[in-house]
Amino acid sequence: MVGNTGSPPGREFLYDANLLKELDWSSVKDFTKPSISNVQPGEDWLLVRPLKIEDYDHGFLKLLSQLTKVGSVTKEEFIRQFYAMKSAGGYYVTVIEDTRDHSIIGSSTLITEFKFIHECSLRARLEDVVVNNTYRGKQLGKLIVLTVSLLAKRLGCYKMSLDCKDNLIPFYKSIGYRMEPGNANSMTIRYDETPPATAPS
Amino acid sequence: MVGNTGSPPGREFLYDANLLKELDWSSVKDFTKPSISNVQPGEDWLLVRPLKIEDYDHGFLKLLSQLTKVGSVTKEEFIRQFYAMKSAGGYYVTVIEDTRDHSIIGSSTLITEFKFIHECSLRARLEDVVVNNTYRGKQLGKLIVLTVSLLAKRLGCYKMSLDCKDNLIPFYKSIGYRMEPGNANSMTIRYDETPPATAPS
Ligand SMILES: CC(C)(COP(=O)(O)OP(=O)(O)OC[C@H]1O[C@@H](n2cnc3c(N)ncnc32)[C@H](O)[C@@H]1OP(=O)(O)O)[C@@H](O)C(=O)NCCC(=O)NCCS
Ligand SMILES: CC(C)(COP(=O)(O)OP(=O)(O)OC[C@H]1O[C@@H](n2cnc3c(N)ncnc32)[C@H](O)[C@@H]1OP(=O)(O)O)[C@@H](O)C(=O)NCCC(=O)NCCS
Repeated sequence: MVGNTGSPPGREFLYDANLLKELDWSSVKDFTKPSISNVQPGEDWLLVRPLKIEDYDHGFLKLLSQLTKVGSVTKEEFIRQFYAMKSAGGYYVTVIEDTRDHSIIGSSTLITEFKFIHECSLRARLEDVVVNNTYRGKQLGKLIVLTVSLLAKRLGCYKMSLDCKDNLIPFYKSIGYRMEPGNANSMTIRYDETPPATAPS
Repeated sequence: MVGNTGSPPGREFLYDANLLKELDWSSVKDFTKPSISNVQPGEDWLLVRPLKIEDYDHGFLKLLSQLTKVGSVTKEEFIRQFYAMKSAGGYYVTVIEDTRDHSIIGSSTLITEFKFIHECSLRARLEDVVVNNTYRGKQLGKLIVLTVSLLAKRLGCYKMSLDCKDNLIPFYKSIGYRMEPGNANSMTIRYDETPPATAPS
């Protein structure tokens, strides 16, 4: 797929930016006060758009490191992963840019999954949500999550799920996510740790 | 990608069956009693392998309907989704066949996701685990989950996650999954329902 897109090298988005143009905010307009959207984000220097390769040089990974360990990633490795995502399809890494200095100040990722259940449907996941700490508390968290959530709806997903820490439950509740009774557990195995010696109880 | 694999049409697997050949069961051998593995599943008529298109005619979707709504899926739609998964990559739908009549009696899906965090790592998810009700209680649930869990490890994933109902927590605990303290919540938005009229509290 690389080199086959018609875009000037390194200027292309991870996914079609037109997908963000006509999201229907009517169902979620009460979730922000004052009401904002990806096309009217409240300040004229805020831009919501798909990830692009140049974001490597404008703090994208530094932003992610406020969320979890990123480690050392060269630009070459970044580009390789960018195209791995682009070729596979279904990766909608969406960022907020401060256009005054082009820094990346917010990010969230929508991932879509093909299913056989529900008539060969599409399912959505929310991943890696973060807002730069100096910009928090200004509704940008809501903005970046609602944007990809409406995008998932537009792509025809039947549901969107996320895993989160206890302290963020109120944040996600405030924008429409729910814990489904009896069905709200996330369990994990980590392969980077030593496994237990015997079967856990 | 279709028609380009060298396999006879309709005889190919969703993913490379060799990946299941040398999984290292040593770390999980105590999780089943008697100890079983994908290559020694306890009965000589049990076969653990990747999904193939013919499974449509051997009860694969009927099996999934014991898990959730599948609805009506034609063979053409099934084939289209099969190749959508195969082209995207990262879909490891793994089944248990009863070779006596070729029926599909168990299934679980490993999905891998490219990440930028953790040094451009790979993350794993477990989805759509089901064993045919007449075959339950014979360790086949453990077998099919452990198989894809070891496959995730082999593919280099740093962790594997799943969402589950309350009543299945003991089942997943018995094969090594954990609820991480403060970080074991799964939240959802469903787009096939009417959204709430105002912001939920
Ligand atoms: C979570 C995060 C993205 C929110 O970004 P933000 O721009 O500050 O969020 P908003 O301004 O849109 O705030 C929305 C609401 O959530 C609340 N909120 C935000 N972060 C919260 C937190 N950590 N704990 C509790 N409530 C929180 C805010 O108080 C606000 O409530 P209000 O509208 O009733 O006043 C941001 O705090 C962050 O990047 N945190 C670190 C990374 C992280 O933990 N990500 C999620 C991993 S599961
Ligand atoms: C969950 C499921 C795959 C387990 O399959 P199985 O072949 O019966 O499982 P096993 O024989 O390997 O059983 C493993 C253990 O889990 C226990 N277990 C299995 N299903 C359980 C359930 N629904 N509730 C509580 N415990 C359960 C068994 O008692 C057994 O415990 P033991 O080893 O201590 O005796 C099967 O019950 C199933 O298909 N359920 C319906 C689909 C479903 O709910 N899938 C998961 C969606 S989140």
